[in-house]
Amino acid sequence: MADPVSPFAPASYPEAPALAGIRLATAEAGIRYKGRTDLLLVRFDPVATVAGVLTKSRCAAAPVDWDRERLKGGKARALVVNSGNANAFTGMKGRQAVEATAAAAASALGCDTSEVFLASTGVIGEPLDPKPFADNLARLATEARPGAFLDAARAIMTTDTFPKLATRTVHLGSGDVTVNGIAKGSGMIAPDMATMLSFIFTDAAIAPVALQAALEEAVAGSFNAITVDGDTSTSDTVLAFATGDAVSRGVPALESDGDALRRFEAALAELCRELAHLVVRDGEGASKFVEVVVSGAETDASAKRVALSIANSPLVKTALAGEDANWGRVVMAVGKAGEPADRDRLAIWFGEHRVAHSGERDPSYSEESVSEYMKRPELVLRADLGIGDGKATVWTCDLTAGYIAINADYRS
Amino acid sequence: MADPVSPFAPASYPEAPALAGIRLATAEAGIRYKGRTDLLLVRFDPVATVAGVLTKSRCAAAPVDWDRERLKGGKARALVVNSGNANAFTGMKGRQAVEATAAAAASALGCDTSEVFLASTGVIGEPLDPKPFADNLARLATEARPGAFLDAARAIMTTDTFPKLATRTVHLGSGDVTVNGIAKGSGMIAPDMATMLSFIFTDAAIAPVALQAALEEAVAGSFNAITVDGDTSTSDTVLAFATGDAVSRGVPALESDGDALRRFEAALAELCRELAHLVVRDGEGASKFVEVVVSGAETDASAKRVALSIANSPLVKTALAGEDANWGRVVMAVGKAGEPADRDRLAIWFGEHRVAHSGERDPSYSEESVSEYMKRPELVLRADLGIGDGKATVWTCDLTAGYIAINADYRS
Repeated sequence: MADPVSPFAPASYPEAPALAGIRLATAEAGIRYKGRTDLLLVRFDPVATVAGVLTKSRCAAAPVDWDRERLKGGKARALVVNSGNANAFTGMKGRQAVEATAAAAASALGCDTSEVFLASTGVIGEPLDPKPFADNLARLATEARPGAFLDAARAIMTTDTFPKLATRTVHLGSGDVTVNGIAKGSGMIAPDMATMLSFIFTDAAIAPVALQAALEEAVAGSFNAITVDGDTSTSDTVLAFATGDAVSRGVPALESDGDALRRFEAALAELCRELAHLVVRDGEGASKFVEVVVSGAETDASAKRVALSIANSPLVKTALAGEDANWGRVVMAVGKAGEPADRDRLAIWFGEHRVAHSGERDPSYSEESVSEYMKRPELVLRADLGIGDGKATVWTCDLTAGYIAINADYRS
Repeated sequence: MADPVSPFAPASYPEAPALAGIRLATAEAGIRYKGRTDLLLVRFDPVATVAGVLTKSRCAAAPVDWDRERLKGGKARALVVNSGNANAFTGMKGRQAVEATAAAAASALGCDTSEVFLASTGVIGEPLDPKPFADNLARLATEARPGAFLDAARAIMTTDTFPKLATRTVHLGSGDVTVNGIAKGSGMIAPDMATMLSFIFTDAAIAPVALQAALEEAVAGSFNAITVDGDTSTSDTVLAFATGDAVSRGVPALESDGDALRRFEAALAELCRELAHLVVRDGEGASKFVEVVVSGAETDASAKRVALSIANSPLVKTALAGEDANWGRVVMAVGKAGEPADRDRLAIWFGEHRVAHSGERDPSYSEESVSEYMKRPELVLRADLGIGDGKATVWTCDLTAGYIAINADYRS
């Protein structure tokens, strides 16, 4: 299966600067794929503060259970990620594989298994053989080098057609701190429960509680506001690691409620949004990148549910694929959301073109100019419910025959 | 767009017997389609008892609003249905079209507009011109003849590839009564809010309250238990009309709590289920008809939400299209449903093949024999949650490139 690269693949990737105390290494461990890397080790020396947001799935994968428990400690020495096998719904064997992998990493780095974080992505239900980890981790611990973030992003891909990497520099009065992030994800992407895999690295010095709060806030407006297909993974994991190395350069720790913390939070939110958008831009079979804006709802939460009803509607998504400004299907999706709405106050825009208002077609809209707009690769679809101040924005892609082709033969 | 006929189209249609007091006529009114019928008039003489279940969409179509009001009267003299234009989200013009159509029908039949029931299906947001109704209804009132149920089923089709007709004879001690039903629907099909259009006709004598109760019960286990794409129409309407003519043949009215009423209810439920299955079998692009059974849930309602999470998952549906027994995606869909579930008690079957149990792959299952099973056109997918007695069954179809092709160019 040689799927074409997404039309939204970036022409080039940012230079994510090396961060003192963070070294990365990847290997072709042959877990499922051949001829590509599928194993990532990130080591933190001497140690990093860690925060995380994990899937709310009732059928979470074994590494998710492992991380949930380890996050209580708030300290990380290693992150081990593999692609090709999700180690999900693998029962006792899955738990044993997780323990064996953590033990191999702890042995390679001379740390405790409670400081090892794990993530796996790929097929669900296949037992994960721990041997490739035992075979490779000691060597990777030695080979790990600073700054290999793009290689790391490549090693965690599954149906992704391009690696996802973003970086931000936060200017503080006392100096700068850096935030680098990688992500993977292309299908089984749905919001409100964290997203696929994303790992964020910073040299800022920040307390675990503050890092967790900043991460949760950032995820709400990024990974939890995207959807490719409404299907929520069993493995969704976002982890943020902070080395605190900035202190050695004279940049003090971020104090709670301080201006420096605000700037860091803003940069983290921006970075998460960029990574989340990259996931949608690599949505399986995507030919359109679509921002869905809902305003005038009773509450923000209600607006988000309506926005997701639009963004997850197969009929809306296929119309977008067909470059059809089929706003009747947007009406349908608003109507089915079950949220407070008044048909006769609803207005709908594609870009700047208002196509419907006050419960009927806008008599002044030009089908020709809207059709021209729909040919763009990036679209904004807006609905105003006209009953309150609630608003929300989510991002999605269209639904094409490419999605069907990718998913009708993924496992076999 | 000449879509192929669904592989599940019936080889022949049942003979739905004429019912005294019910006459039907169809016309090529040119509302949107050319070269096919798109207007249906059913007349009830002298009058029929009527019950209905209508969409819960917050953006319901104008005829739905009309019917909701008229159902309070419980009496019907006429049913007028058009295809090609849903008269939904058409504002004041939509309400005027509804009133004009009802007036034309009332005039043609010499009845009150409050005894006229309406339904429209097709494109959303296009104003519906009432002229074709005014032009045709007087003639149709004269031409109407008994027994033309199959013609009626044809006139209400949109993206349907075959007409949907079912009939039941209910044997009561004192004689028989007949129940005939027609339905349309192929896309924008989602449960829990009634379904597309279905009309049911019987000569039984039954009180409005009993007919409404029997209809609601029947709809719950049929139209409200199917999904093609999770998208709920603005026009969903199920109406049941009872002439009471059976009394003239010595079959007494159905008494509440009587055995005869039980038999009638059972037949109505069976008929609704047959019609609902026909809708799924004509699901846009469908190549598989799939029964999804969930057992062992905390409650029946919980089981139904899990079953719908499975049946609406694009990843499960594309796997079915690919004849891939990808039970990992079933695990994902159970996990994302948000209902009480225990990963380590979950078991999954395709047909008789148990592929997973106790939180992992069933070691004894044969991939080869499951793959052979997946080639069948009709599949049963079962999940047991292992935590309670709740159970539910829903029906769906797969998601194929055909669905994309149909919906990427439906409006244009």
